[in-house]
Amino acid sequence: MQELSVVSPSKIVMLVIDGLGGLPNGTGKTELETAATPNMDKLAQSGSCGLMQTVAQGITPGSAPGHLGLFGYDPLSYTIGRGVLEALGMDFELQHGDIAARGNFCTLDAQGLISDRRAGRILTEESSKLCSLLDGMEIDGIQVIVRAVKDHRLVVVFRGVGLSEKISDTDPQQTCLPPKEVASLESDAGRTAQVVNTFLAEARKRLAPHAPANMVLLRGFSCLPSFPSFPDIYKMRSAAIAGYPMYRGLAKVVGMDVLKTGLTLADELNTMEQNYADYDFFFVHVKGADAAGEDGDFARKVSVIEDVDRHLPSLLQLKPDVLIITGDHSTPAVLSGHSWHPVPCLLSSAHCRRDNITEFGESACRNGGLGHINATSLMWLAMANGLKLTKFGA
Amino acid sequence: MQELSVVSPSKIVMLVIDGLGGLPNGTGKTELETAATPNMDKLAQSGSCGLMQTVAQGITPGSAPGHLGLFGYDPLSYTIGRGVLEALGMDFELQHGDIAARGNFCTLDAQGLISDRRAGRILTEESSKLCSLLDGMEIDGIQVIVRAVKDHRLVVVFRGVGLSEKISDTDPQQTCLPPKEVASLESDAGRTAQVVNTFLAEARKRLAPHAPANMVLLRGFSCLPSFPSFPDIYKMRSAAIAGYPMYRGLAKVVGMDVLKTGLTLADELNTMEQNYADYDFFFVHVKGADAAGEDGDFARKVSVIEDVDRHLPSLLQLKPDVLIITGDHSTPAVLSGHSWHPVPCLLSSAHCRRDNITEFGESACRNGGLGHINATSLMWLAMANGLKLTKFGA
Repeated sequence: MQELSVVSPSKIVMLVIDGLGGLPNGTGKTELETAATPNMDKLAQSGSCGLMQTVAQGITPGSAPGHLGLFGYDPLSYTIGRGVLEALGMDFELQHGDIAARGNFCTLDAQGLISDRRAGRILTEESSKLCSLLDGMEIDGIQVIVRAVKDHRLVVVFRGVGLSEKISDTDPQQTCLPPKEVASLESDAGRTAQVVNTFLAEARKRLAPHAPANMVLLRGFSCLPSFPSFPDIYKMRSAAIAGYPMYRGLAKVVGMDVLKTGLTLADELNTMEQNYADYDFFFVHVKGADAAGEDGDFARKVSVIEDVDRHLPSLLQLKPDVLIITGDHSTPAVLSGHSWHPVPCLLSSAHCRRDNITEFGESACRNGGLGHINATSLMWLAMANGLKLTKFGA
Repeated sequence: MQELSVVSPSKIVMLVIDGLGGLPNGTGKTELETAATPNMDKLAQSGSCGLMQTVAQGITPGSAPGHLGLFGYDPLSYTIGRGVLEALGMDFELQHGDIAARGNFCTLDAQGLISDRRAGRILTEESSKLCSLLDGMEIDGIQVIVRAVKDHRLVVVFRGVGLSEKISDTDPQQTCLPPKEVASLESDAGRTAQVVNTFLAEARKRLAPHAPANMVLLRGFSCLPSFPSFPDIYKMRSAAIAGYPMYRGLAKVVGMDVLKTGLTLADELNTMEQNYADYDFFFVHVKGADAAGEDGDFARKVSVIEDVDRHLPSLLQLKPDVLIITGDHSTPAVLSGHSWHPVPCLLSSAHCRRDNITEFGESACRNGGLGHINATSLMWLAMANGLKLTKFGA
């Protein structure tokens, strides 16, 4: 389909309210249906709505597959390792061939068994100091880079020639067990496993005096995947505006420019305004709805959605030619977690076929003009509405 | 997706009303819409409804592909020969490598032409005696097993090493022609064709004095396919409860346990109740609606559906966590046969997103929350609603 995309001056904005989809609480209405969203409702009236699967029917998407779906990459074919996501999300300049792992500082007891997988959730300041202790080793020609993420979390990157991501985790995912040795999962991965195990032995020595953070657990060893480039596929200068690391990382993997921004939607929209002339596509990410849903906090999720609605006028002032408002998956507060339920999706443009939807919500979207679609269709609909696709065939 | 499925205590019941979908008669309502179904309607109100293709848009499914779709196997990729289905359906213990054929006793006239393809529909008692006459031959090291099915129908199984299913039918599917010789359809099938032709020549001799059943016609030569196991894919102890042979056979091919039961839904539900603790998944099959549809008997199909509805309370007493009510295809009485029209589908669980459907019927299902789905999604939706799937990706 890349052959159909053409450069045009129109601008597309995809506003992703993370975990937007929900389920009714006692009142019979979902979070989105409960929220007062006069601006979204107005957009629904002039736009096309629908329900969307970001991975497949019945599948509960993680954040990465959910977003890849929204960007037009079939998440069942395009997968990204957790270590890579974590590294990219902290704006770490991962190079092709690097192996990244996600890590936790943890607590080992006198017997060497894990007593706390999160080392008492030590603060970022403390874990930064400990990361400096571990950073910069060179083992068998491999450089080891260690960076604190947030609280007890860290990223470890192994850089050098001939590394393999096919090695096993050290995190047993439960306490009262010792950390596991890294094992090679394919014949070429023996040396990588050795390097990582040597690093872990040295880390244990150096961290010994620093209980509760006297060891690290690593998981999700992975290298940067080579996906087709989003800006190339859609022929758009593409920018990601996301306050949270994971989402910046995802955008980077598909080749978007990641713009510096703050944590609030006001910050993000301000960033978009400042960069509006320089890009054709903006992915704007709102985290709060998902976090509230995961906490099982229906009211807070409602209020996050209402807050987004209040900010819409400042977004609309920029007059994007195509505006999409949707989520990467559902996170119903009543389930306190991601779910498989399709997400409501709104597409507004001068060229969409209006439906009779008057309110942006799961029930209304069920009968919307977009129908029940798969996320891999969304970018093509956006491109079409931006008049950025030529006719297919004669 | 098998990697996402997890063992959990929840129970899923799939009630398949064979040929459920219909078309309106003069009143403008389909069979299901005409039937008084207060219990299904109540379930529709608290559940999610939709329309479902069991094979693909426009395709009229046979019973086997229809059910394979419901079980989550793409019927265009997974096919089963008719001989195999017939053998399995009579609880014959087919072995891998066996070649099974479906047969009819038929009548040959003095010229050796078929005058009745069904030998006057002789009774099972009579055909059982004739099958004994043919059973137990050994031809070129191949054992031939002959079993009566019902009325004029029989199954012939060829057992031995090196057989091929790639041979042609002997049934010309019309009268006034002689039975056809079996021909090999691939280079390796020559010996199999010879064995079968030798059997047929001998059968003709032995049956000569037994007009009207003085010959057999064989078709659908096939061997047991090796499909991925349903209990393995979904990690559920899975039971099939079906009064009719074909459906037991289908369930057996995908690896379900087939429970002994009677012909009525009351028998079947009784069987389910007695085995409820031992399984996580129950496939329950109701034949009558399809048979009535095939007979073009709108009123009888309505009454079969009403009878199912009357039995629902005893099913609901078991409190399955997920209940699906649907069909394997449509069998509109006005067409007197299977059809391509999508089947209504109802999924009820504590975690489904309710829609505003208040009545279980084709028209209402069109706007239901499940949307218009393919049957291969159904099991994943069922699993999701049973909280039997983990999140896909981080």
